[in-house]
Amino acid sequence: MITDFQDWTKGCQTRIEDFLQKLLPAQDQPPTNLHGAMRYAVLEGGKRVRPLLSFAAGELSGADEERVTVVATAVELIHAYSLVHDDLPCMDNDILRRGKYTCHVEYDEATALLVGDSLQSLAFELLTQHCLADSPQTQLKMIGHLARAAGSRGMAGGQAVDLASVGKTLSLVELEFMHNHKTGALIHVAVMLGAHCGKNLSNAQLESVDRFSKCIGLAFQVVDDLLDAEATTATLGKTAGKDAKNNKPTYVSILGISQARDLANELQHDAYEALKDFGSTAKRLRQVTDFIIQRKF
Amino acid sequence: MITDFQDWTKGCQTRIEDFLQKLLPAQDQPPTNLHGAMRYAVLEGGKRVRPLLSFAAGELSGADEERVTVVATAVELIHAYSLVHDDLPCMDNDILRRGKYTCHVEYDEATALLVGDSLQSLAFELLTQHCLADSPQTQLKMIGHLARAAGSRGMAGGQAVDLASVGKTLSLVELEFMHNHKTGALIHVAVMLGAHCGKNLSNAQLESVDRFSKCIGLAFQVVDDLLDAEATTATLGKTAGKDAKNNKPTYVSILGISQARDLANELQHDAYEALKDFGSTAKRLRQVTDFIIQRKF
Repeated sequence: MITDFQDWTKGCQTRIEDFLQKLLPAQDQPPTNLHGAMRYAVLEGGKRVRPLLSFAAGELSGADEERVTVVATAVELIHAYSLVHDDLPCMDNDILRRGKYTCHVEYDEATALLVGDSLQSLAFELLTQHCLADSPQTQLKMIGHLARAAGSRGMAGGQAVDLASVGKTLSLVELEFMHNHKTGALIHVAVMLGAHCGKNLSNAQLESVDRFSKCIGLAFQVVDDLLDAEATTATLGKTAGKDAKNNKPTYVSILGISQARDLANELQHDAYEALKDFGSTAKRLRQVTDFIIQRKF
Repeated sequence: MITDFQDWTKGCQTRIEDFLQKLLPAQDQPPTNLHGAMRYAVLEGGKRVRPLLSFAAGELSGADEERVTVVATAVELIHAYSLVHDDLPCMDNDILRRGKYTCHVEYDEATALLVGDSLQSLAFELLTQHCLADSPQTQLKMIGHLARAAGSRGMAGGQAVDLASVGKTLSLVELEFMHNHKTGALIHVAVMLGAHCGKNLSNAQLESVDRFSKCIGLAFQVVDDLLDAEATTATLGKTAGKDAKNNKPTYVSILGISQARDLANELQHDAYEALKDFGSTAKRLRQVTDFIIQRKF
């Protein structure tokens, strides 16, 4: 069972990597420095959790794998751009990401800024270049969902709240608001877009998927906070312990490690509950849920 | 005639301003600091040259004014985001824009970064929320055009070349390559999207519009370089003389003022030529051309 999931995960990751390899402008295409930096920031990077969620959610609606590859890649491009910008000196000022120097360290700040800007544009360009749904109207809606999830009422907005919260004491409700935007919005849309690639789901089904993706988005962040507190930089591939060092409110700082772990388990349970009517088509989503909760990096 | 054009211009600018006022998240919607900064960076700003080009190009295809308002606003959001990022310390490090402090001076660097990121997302979200063309397939193509024009093979790519060229001597061909991307790509798409909002134009007509928009994009930059060399900061509303100060190659530095002015006039002539088969439907585009060539700020 574990091997089966590992094979599936590897297959998804390879598909995304191959697709990105072809999609990203070649290193020798002018402006070469920018294109080299875009490739540096995106390729061979990370666990591709959001794409895994898109692929798994696509199984709920019997979605075509090629369509899901496109939406999963677009979501990953938005995620990659956000990491490049978040690592900049005026934001988190971090020098390590995915076991490599961050983009502005390997290149320079101006290039990293343009890398992020260009990756965002590329995500939206990509979503117009392939047929992604049975109707173009649905495809337009999907593009709108991603744009909204990325913007000031989604991920970028959560980042703004995060910056404003440094050194402050947040309530659990405020912390949840921040993470629902900063991390949750993009995870949510990764799931929803994957599901939208296939046959139409009923409103009740879409509500279940929506509920699932909100649980898993929050669970992802709770586990992220636990790992930042418990793991080492070598294991994480990014600087560990920086939340405490930066005096950032986290689930661990508010709840403590033991209760934060309880919350993660509770969210895992709620995520499973939301999927209960999908039967075996939700097998991969359950596995990805376990993977997110149990990951060590 | 001049009054007629001034009235038309004022009408377009008011439509864009009103639309932006409603579109941008309210200042009291969380995260309030980010939303306030987005409004600061976009509202009451600039000549809205790109929207004017969209409205004028819309007349070539009898486009509906409400559709053009949407595409013009999206282009202006991309333009506004690029200004906020270009002004950052790691880029041009400028403190004045449109007669006000730049966004990172009025707020801070991190907020300005997120403002630009969020404005880009908002542009694409907007383009999915209204019917903009007779077929949704055309609308998807239009979104793709804007995304490509904004990205590494368009505006952001031109900015990367610009940064790499500081202190270097460029040939006229290299300078043209840079500006065709940095300024030209977005002006080009402003014209094309306006034209796409109406009835289908023939391929020959689209080629003419394409040729026109390339001429006007380059002309815009030549005049920009002339103004930077000749005008004062008070008139421009942004720092004058900074190209020479930053040792940036410009049309003025390569050609001298007199020949740069000749080039602007030549491009104006070519732009007129490209429009010759459109007759009276191109009246506004000719007027906007004159406005771009003769502007003093």
